[in-house]
Amino acid sequence: MENNQLRINGKRLQDSLEQMAKIGATPNGGVQRLTLSDEDKAARDLFVKWLKELDLEIVIDELGNIFGTRKGKDNTLAPVMSGSHIDSQPKGGRFDGILGVMGALEVMRTLTENSIETQHPITIVVWTNEEGTRFAPAMMCSGVWANALDKKWIYDRTDINGKRFEDELIRIGYKGDTPAKKSDIHAYYEYHIEQGPVLERENKIIGIPKGIVCLHWYDIYLEGEANQVGPTPMEGRHDALCAAAEMILKVNELPNRMGGNLVATVGEIQNEPNSRNIIPDKIHFTVDIRSWDDDLAIKAWDLVKQDFENIAHGRGCPIRIEETWRVEHSPFNQELVKNIADSAKILGYPSLHMVSGAGHDASYMNQIAPTAMIFVPSIGGRSHVEVEKTKWEDCEAGTNVLLHTILKSANG
Amino acid sequence: MENNQLRINGKRLQDSLEQMAKIGATPNGGVQRLTLSDEDKAARDLFVKWLKELDLEIVIDELGNIFGTRKGKDNTLAPVMSGSHIDSQPKGGRFDGILGVMGALEVMRTLTENSIETQHPITIVVWTNEEGTRFAPAMMCSGVWANALDKKWIYDRTDINGKRFEDELIRIGYKGDTPAKKSDIHAYYEYHIEQGPVLERENKIIGIPKGIVCLHWYDIYLEGEANQVGPTPMEGRHDALCAAAEMILKVNELPNRMGGNLVATVGEIQNEPNSRNIIPDKIHFTVDIRSWDDDLAIKAWDLVKQDFENIAHGRGCPIRIEETWRVEHSPFNQELVKNIADSAKILGYPSLHMVSGAGHDASYMNQIAPTAMIFVPSIGGRSHVEVEKTKWEDCEAGTNVLLHTILKSANG
Repeated sequence: MENNQLRINGKRLQDSLEQMAKIGATPNGGVQRLTLSDEDKAARDLFVKWLKELDLEIVIDELGNIFGTRKGKDNTLAPVMSGSHIDSQPKGGRFDGILGVMGALEVMRTLTENSIETQHPITIVVWTNEEGTRFAPAMMCSGVWANALDKKWIYDRTDINGKRFEDELIRIGYKGDTPAKKSDIHAYYEYHIEQGPVLERENKIIGIPKGIVCLHWYDIYLEGEANQVGPTPMEGRHDALCAAAEMILKVNELPNRMGGNLVATVGEIQNEPNSRNIIPDKIHFTVDIRSWDDDLAIKAWDLVKQDFENIAHGRGCPIRIEETWRVEHSPFNQELVKNIADSAKILGYPSLHMVSGAGHDASYMNQIAPTAMIFVPSIGGRSHVEVEKTKWEDCEAGTNVLLHTILKSANG
Repeated sequence: MENNQLRINGKRLQDSLEQMAKIGATPNGGVQRLTLSDEDKAARDLFVKWLKELDLEIVIDELGNIFGTRKGKDNTLAPVMSGSHIDSQPKGGRFDGILGVMGALEVMRTLTENSIETQHPITIVVWTNEEGTRFAPAMMCSGVWANALDKKWIYDRTDINGKRFEDELIRIGYKGDTPAKKSDIHAYYEYHIEQGPVLERENKIIGIPKGIVCLHWYDIYLEGEANQVGPTPMEGRHDALCAAAEMILKVNELPNRMGGNLVATVGEIQNEPNSRNIIPDKIHFTVDIRSWDDDLAIKAWDLVKQDFENIAHGRGCPIRIEETWRVEHSPFNQELVKNIADSAKILGYPSLHMVSGAGHDASYMNQIAPTAMIFVPSIGGRSHVEVEKTKWEDCEAGTNVLLHTILKSANG
């Protein structure tokens, strides 16, 4: 069989995704596999079992990143790598992350059952804690691997109950011996759902991002003065929730104010004491700003930060601002982007050049290796929710593109 | 000794308050005695022990309300009643509620050690669940006793963990046999901290409210559309938190808009999924409106409700509104108000006629019996917080006013 005729097994891919979806399944059809939870462990165990069936060389590093390598004709060459993550949001979907892992696995299975040898070795990877929900920040362990984050700092990160990352990693049995340290990678491809509405709206099956937007996270802490609401006149109140409400609206107006080329969101808010008859005196909320234009995002932040300080001053609510995390926008390797576009074209799938609004492990990989991504449509643009869905035929299409793109790099 | 020379024992009052403050003490000097918690039980046990030492006739009704009656010369006469509540806010203060109970207890102790007989019997009362924080609404059990609320409905109220009121009442051993049903009361006096800044600002020791403002509670539920924030353009978002932020500011502006004679507050908000990279899709928040003018409060609500509906429509966030609770403003009995003013004058304490901005069990008692209240200053106007404080000499002053006011009614 000519390689160009080669196709993955869509039914087998669907079966694997459905088996994974049972682990941490939620009542409304989603999954909850928080990082280093029992569900994360169960999904890892199943994945490792599948790697063993393919006779791959399995390595688990000191951060729980899992690598499975299929030998090439010349194992002195750097491998082509592909994968994504197994963890999910709380009440997350059945495709985010896991599609890229099951897709790469299906590529491995297809190569093996067709006895196809490649020049370069091929490595499938699962990165620990992409979501950053249980332990912040996101994409932690690809970050360490790519030498952008510090391992010791990661080990000491705690969840909301004060549990340490390292302790939980040991608890589920996934703290390996191999250092989490970058090695030469010939090409890194990450296959993922779009998580936005663009492909569906444009009626395309394959999305080819030119890169990932920048991602800036901020944490805002406000103090007010708690008092019984009835006997406390409006004059002289220091209501932290009112201050936060003004700030939330400023964040929401920011993209328009900057001309549109960014998104800005407050997703999280904590209010204390959170009692209906007490004036709120402690607020924490988050700000997320993303743009292809890093300077625009920073300019926007500077403006809204000034707004925050004015509002805090006006309401007599002291403010503390943490500039928690900044990742620059990340243009992918143009040759790899072209490989994906060529594969989509050969396979006859309509494709679209775009940007990735979401961060991915590919962001960090892009700092140390030629990197690109393949997107498939999210129905209704919905993601990070239980109803997250991608058509099975689109999952299959994306995996075929991944197969042919990997083959091209692994033989090129 | 002439009765006019009679004074309570300020040191003993302070001791009793300090003993009570140990039960549920919080690290920052407050107390947390949530309704029907182990701390509530411990405080009740201590209170009942003290009642027994005074040889009072003790009755515990089917809602856990506790009554201790000191015989009068003519026990066919309706009793004078005084008391308040033992439960607290989460991270509440050491004076709210318990001062009125310890004050009435100190009055009983003073009468007994001075062998003073009164014409009417005198009853001290502790009402279950005044705060309404663990089980909503507030002032539940004075409400049932006064025939304004339904007992079965109260039994089925649940806390945030789904625990039923009745089950918890049985668990702590305070479900009595006596029906929670009003009886004739000659006069009801409730002694309480002001919980506002007015007395301190005006440099008065005794506050004499002409009544309690109306109290309207609303619950607002908003739906948005959850999505990953990065790949979801600003256009077409349905962000429930932004809708809520607009509404919170409308509530805050309401008193000014209505000319000032009301207070309006959002104290509580829940946001889901509350993740920094997901657009919020479920919000619950509360609205609390209070005024001496019931019609003004309802007019204000009608206006802000219209604002809510417009905002919800504009942001494509379906809204559900519950009109949870309304208590009308409640003017106290003028003769009892005058008794208090006379006592303060005789005792030489500077006093102020005012309104009560907070609801109290006195609201329900006022529907079925002649009722009035005595306030003492809250330092800095702070209440429902751990730093809540009233000077010991003011606690003593208020209790002396209570003593003489009770004597007047019990002999009149």
